[in-house]
Amino acid sequence: MQSLQRIDQAVARALQSAEARGAPPRLAAAIRHAVLPGGARIRPQLTLAVAAACGDDAPELADGAAAALELMHCASLVHDDLPCFDDALVRRGRPSVVAAHGERCAVLAGDALIVMAFEALARGARRAPLRLPALMAVLSARVGMPQGIVAGQGWECEDWVALPDYQRAKTGSLFAAATEMGALAAGADPAPWRAFGECLGEAYQIADDIRDVAGDLQTLGKPVDRDRTLGRPSAVAELGMAGALAYFEGLVDRAGAAVPEGPGARTLRAILHAEAERLLPESLRAQALPMAAAAA
Amino acid sequence: MQSLQRIDQAVARALQSAEARGAPPRLAAAIRHAVLPGGARIRPQLTLAVAAACGDDAPELADGAAAALELMHCASLVHDDLPCFDDALVRRGRPSVVAAHGERCAVLAGDALIVMAFEALARGARRAPLRLPALMAVLSARVGMPQGIVAGQGWECEDWVALPDYQRAKTGSLFAAATEMGALAAGADPAPWRAFGECLGEAYQIADDIRDVAGDLQTLGKPVDRDRTLGRPSAVAELGMAGALAYFEGLVDRAGAAVPEGPGARTLRAILHAEAERLLPESLRAQALPMAAAAA
Repeated sequence: MQSLQRIDQAVARALQSAEARGAPPRLAAAIRHAVLPGGARIRPQLTLAVAAACGDDAPELADGAAAALELMHCASLVHDDLPCFDDALVRRGRPSVVAAHGERCAVLAGDALIVMAFEALARGARRAPLRLPALMAVLSARVGMPQGIVAGQGWECEDWVALPDYQRAKTGSLFAAATEMGALAAGADPAPWRAFGECLGEAYQIADDIRDVAGDLQTLGKPVDRDRTLGRPSAVAELGMAGALAYFEGLVDRAGAAVPEGPGARTLRAILHAEAERLLPESLRAQALPMAAAAA
Repeated sequence: MQSLQRIDQAVARALQSAEARGAPPRLAAAIRHAVLPGGARIRPQLTLAVAAACGDDAPELADGAAAALELMHCASLVHDDLPCFDDALVRRGRPSVVAAHGERCAVLAGDALIVMAFEALARGARRAPLRLPALMAVLSARVGMPQGIVAGQGWECEDWVALPDYQRAKTGSLFAAATEMGALAAGADPAPWRAFGECLGEAYQIADDIRDVAGDLQTLGKPVDRDRTLGRPSAVAELGMAGALAYFEGLVDRAGAAVPEGPGARTLRAILHAEAERLLPESLRAQALPMAAAAA
């Protein structure tokens, strides 16, 4: 089965369970809105690609880990869009969850999605329960305190933060989790996979900063120039556009070099290359692509 | 070791890990504020009491389950107090998390606490990993969708809700989890313990409704008459004060009758009796106590 199909099915199973008999209908609709139709599903794809590179001997568990990461990512988007943070009315080219379903349902949808993520992971572990504690430890560490995505968002409440720390926690940590959990789900050592995920994740955050300045509403699916408006840390604000592009390219290089050699390395570098291309606004690709291509 | 001491230590371990090097300091302070000093810690006490009644052969796991329930409870209080829900400035007799640390830290503290809860459970399961999947399934179901405490709060976003469904999800479910997880942590069947937790939890919610009307700020630790102000479902609004008291007493009776017979039954009924007494405002105890005492 193709990996996108596996991810869709795993996410659908989680949704189905959340919408079962007795669920409050408005909250259920807000959760569905947060999850479907999905974005690029890059994190769960990474998980399945790494699991495949490690043998994928427990595919149900890899699917559970992939769904968990996607649900966590959706939870973070829903809470990021709340009025007290980004106050974003548009997400993925349509109304955000908070715009469509109100603030109360948005808070609760994020909470429910965090719980659903752990639930999906545990459900996938039924036939391989001995792998569950380590998977939970990684997922908790990469999402929660002191250095997960929630901690990363927490840095927005501080007066000052070092940009790399912020980027690493806010975005890099869930990408690291995606690669580590792919390995763990297949019974492999996660340590060699961490750097690949971290570099790719940091590259994502930089690309996001670049698109925030150089993108347009239509391709971005959300308003531009929000970082400056909201006074958020941004690679473009700190390094300038040329500096941010060079930083991005360096991270893509490092991610490519960090892929452990083995049967899946070629596929993973191909994903990296395609993503690096997709991530930049068209107008900037000519500048950045030669280096990204060299890394792939 | 006394159970309160075990709970304090398990919660402190979770806090310590959240506050480790690299944590954003304001968010870390908000999380500490949410958890310490604690309230009655009744849910984790129930867990340990049921685990003890079932032999408590894996005390680390029982401690992890107890901490998980307390952290989930704290998460729900922090998010309930947000401006879009109760807009509460006072909790446990001092400023609420949102009043003391702002809305952004309050949203993130709740998110982090949910993650910390699963993390504490997984950490406790290191020596008994085969018990972890079932514990996670119960915790997820009783916290998330479609019928956990998040779903219960979700009913506040609907135009109409049946009071028992609302009470059962919003409060009863975490009490059910407390008893079921105590049994599971000790390797016992959770099914016989569920009704005890559910009845006790529903009694708690009714007592909360009663105190909201008949209590005072000092003993309640939060403003009174919030349910009516906020238009929330309330047993007192629906049944009148006498009806709500009778309903409460009936639930305490049923909880007492639902305790499975065995070596721990006497201790559990004693906890139930003490709690039933503690839960009602002093002015109402004379009316209700004879029946509560009969149940104990």
